[in-house]
Amino acid sequence: MNAFSFLDIEREKGITMVLDKGLSPDFINDYLKVCGEYINFIKFGWGTSAVQNRDIVKEKIRNYKRYGIKSYPGGTLFEVCFSRGMFDEYLNECKELGFEAVEISNGSMDLSLEDRKNAIKMAKDEGFIVLTEVGKKNIEKDKELSIMDRINLINEDLKVGADYVIIEGRESGKSIGLFDKEGNVKLSEFETLINNVPVEKIIFEAPNKNQQVEFILKVGNDVNLGNIAYNEVISLETLRRGLRGDTFGKIQ
Amino acid sequence: MNAFSFLDIEREKGITMVLDKGLSPDFINDYLKVCGEYINFIKFGWGTSAVQNRDIVKEKIRNYKRYGIKSYPGGTLFEVCFSRGMFDEYLNECKELGFEAVEISNGSMDLSLEDRKNAIKMAKDEGFIVLTEVGKKNIEKDKELSIMDRINLINEDLKVGADYVIIEGRESGKSIGLFDKEGNVKLSEFETLINNVPVEKIIFEAPNKNQQVEFILKVGNDVNLGNIAYNEVISLETLRRGLRGDTFGKIQ
Amino acid sequence: MNAFSFLDIEREKGITMVLDKGLSPDFINDYLKVCGEYINFIKFGWGTSAVQNRDIVKEKIRNYKRYGIKSYPGGTLFEVCFSRGMFDEYLNECKELGFEAVEISNGSMDLSLEDRKNAIKMAKDEGFIVLTEVGKKNIEKDKELSIMDRINLINEDLKVGADYVIIEGRESGKSIGLFDKEGNVKLSEFETLINNVPVEKIIFEAPNKNQQVEFILKVGNDVNLGNIAYNEVISLETLRRGLRGDTFGKIQ
Repeated sequence: MNAFSFLDIEREKGITMVLDKGLSPDFINDYLKVCGEYINFIKFGWGTSAVQNRDIVKEKIRNYKRYGIKSYPGGTLFEVCFSRGMFDEYLNECKELGFEAVEISNGSMDLSLEDRKNAIKMAKDEGFIVLTEVGKKNIEKDKELSIMDRINLINEDLKVGADYVIIEGRESGKSIGLFDKEGNVKLSEFETLINNVPVEKIIFEAPNKNQQVEFILKVGNDVNLGNIAYNEVISLETLRRGLRGDTFGKIQ
Repeated sequence: MNAFSFLDIEREKGITMVLDKGLSPDFINDYLKVCGEYINFIKFGWGTSAVQNRDIVKEKIRNYKRYGIKSYPGGTLFEVCFSRGMFDEYLNECKELGFEAVEISNGSMDLSLEDRKNAIKMAKDEGFIVLTEVGKKNIEKDKELSIMDRINLINEDLKVGADYVIIEGRESGKSIGLFDKEGNVKLSEFETLINNVPVEKIIFEAPNKNQQVEFILKVGNDVNLGNIAYNEVISLETLRRGLRGDTFGKIQ
Repeated sequence: MNAFSFLDIEREKGITMVLDKGLSPDFINDYLKVCGEYINFIKFGWGTSAVQNRDIVKEKIRNYKRYGIKSYPGGTLFEVCFSRGMFDEYLNECKELGFEAVEISNGSMDLSLEDRKNAIKMAKDEGFIVLTEVGKKNIEKDKELSIMDRINLINEDLKVGADYVIIEGRESGKSIGLFDKEGNVKLSEFETLINNVPVEKIIFEAPNKNQQVEFILKVGNDVNLGNIAYNEVISLETLRRGLRGDTFGKIQ
C-alpha cells in the first residue's frame, strides 16, 4: 500500500520504458523497491550491454525480471550486429543473456523495408517481444523523414507483427522526431501522427519533463512513454496522477 | 574528522534542504555516510511520497532521522489533500509516517489568507515544524506576484508561527521567483527582499550552482538554501567554505 | 568476458578520468563491477575531499585502488593549501589518505612559473604521479590565455616531469579552454594545440557528449578524456567503440 492511500489516485494502464545506461546490480535491487512496479520495459541503451560483463548483464536482467520488467538492448546494437551479418548471433546471445524483447531499428544505418520486415518476423519467431523504432539518430537525416513516412512505417511494422513502435527521441529529446530544437513537441505533426496510428501501440520517447507533460495532457495519463531517466520514474508517476504542479487539476 | 582538517575551514550555521524525488532506502544509508552531517531538511518532492510504498517511506524517514535530518512532503501534496477537504487526513498520515515537518503552500491552487493562516496554526498545534512557501508553479501566475506581495506574505506567515518560509525556485530554477529565464538571480528584487524580511528565516530554493554562489556571496555562507539535488550536497558544502573556484578567496 | 563478445570490438589504450564529487563507498563498490575496468583516474573534484570524513575518503580510495584506479584530489585543494603555505602538509595528508596522484594547477590563484616547477618536482620526489592543469576557472581570466600560452605551459610542465597535463574544461564544459559558450570545441585552436604537444600526454576535460565525440573522431578512440561524469563512463566506452549512433561506422 502506498503512503497517503486515502487519495485513491490510481491510473490507467500505460507503459513506462526506462533507460539503463550502466546501472549497477545491487543499486538496481534497491532502486526497484521504490519504483519497480511502475516500469514495464528497461532498455540497455544503444550498445551499452556489449561493454558490460556477461554475468553482470545476466544478473541485471534477472533483477529486473523479478519485478515483471522486460529488458532489451538498444536498437543500435541490433544495427551493429545486423550490418556485420551477425543477426543470428545477436538473437542467440539476446536469448542466452535473458533479454525478453529486442528492438529493430535503422537509426544509424540503411535497412531495406524487406530486411526490416524479415528481421521483425525472425525475432517474433524466436519468441521475442519486438519493438521497432522510427527515426534517425542524425539530425539532418531525421529531417528527411516526413510525418507521413513515419506513419506509413509504423503501420507497416505493426502489420508484420511488431508489438510496439517507438518514436525516436534520443537521450536529449532535441531536434529529433516530434521535437524541435528546444525540445518542444511539434504539435501539428504530433496530432497528424496520433490520428493515423493506433496510439496504444506507440511508445513516445520523452526524456524531458515538458515532453512528458505534453503527451500526458494530449493523449491521456495512460500514454506510453520511453527513454525515461532512471531517476525520473517517480516524478513521471506523479505527473500521470496530477501530483505535480504541471498536471495538478488537469488529470481526469 | 574530515580529511585535510589542518585547513580548519569550519562554517557558520546555515540550513541545507535537499530534494528527494525517489531515492532508495539502502542507497540513502550509504549516501548519508558521506553527506549526512550537511543536510538539515529533506523534502520528498511534490507528491512523490504518495506513489511510494508506505513502509518504504517510513524506512526512508527513519534513515534520515538517524542523522538528525527532518523530512517533509512537498507542498503540492498538501495542496492536493487540502483542495479535497482532506487536511486532517493529511496531517494524520504525515504523523504516522514519521514526517517531522510539513509545507504549507499555494503553488498550484488558490488559498485564502485566512485558510493559509489556519493551516499553519493547525500544523503547529499538531507539533510539526512548519515551512511555508511563497510563489506559484505556473510562470505566468508567478509573475503576477510583486516583490512586495512576496514580502508581505512572508511576514504574515512568520507572524502566524511558520518556522521558515521557502522562496519558490522549482527543480529547474528558471523563470520563477527570484530567477530570470536564464536562471540568474534578479538582484534588485533580491535585495529588496532581504532588506524587508528576517533572512535567517528564509530558505532560498537554489537548484543551480550559479544561484548557490550568488546567494552565498550576497548573504553569507550561512544562507539557507533549498532544492539542492542530492548529489550536489558536497559541492554546495565546498562552495560555502571557499573550496571551489567560484568562491575561492571570497569567503571570510 | 563481455556480453556480445563475438563483436570483438576492443579499443586502443586511452585514459578515462572520472569526476567523483561525493560518491558513497558501498555505491562505489557496486558501480565498479560495471565500469571499473574502464576508469584510469578518479578525481575527488576541487575541494570535495576536505569536507568528507577521513576514514570514508580512505575507504573510497581503497575501493578504487582494487580496480587499479588511481585517485587524486582536485587542483583547487592544492591551491587552497599552497596559498596558505601548507604544501608540505598537503602532500603529507595526500600520502596518508592513500592518494597516488596529485594535481598542480593555478585555476583560481596566481602561481609563478618557478613555484609551479618546484611544486611539480616536489610532488614527483614524494612519489606521486603528477598531473598539471592548464586554464583558469574564471571565464574572463581564462580568455586572456592564448593558445600559444597554453602550449608553452604544457611543454614546460612536461619537461619538468609532469606525467600528464589536463586541459581545463570544468564540470560545465562551457566558455572555457577549448570550448565556446555553447560547449562546442574551437577547432582551429584545438588543431594548433594537438600539433604542438605530445597528445598522448594530454587529458582533455570533456564533460559533455558532443565534446567526447569530437575528440574521439579528431584524435582517435584512444584519446585521453577527463571530467567524465560517473554515470557516463559506459556511454563513453560505447562512443570509443562505435556502439552509439554518434560514432557508429566512424571508428577504424
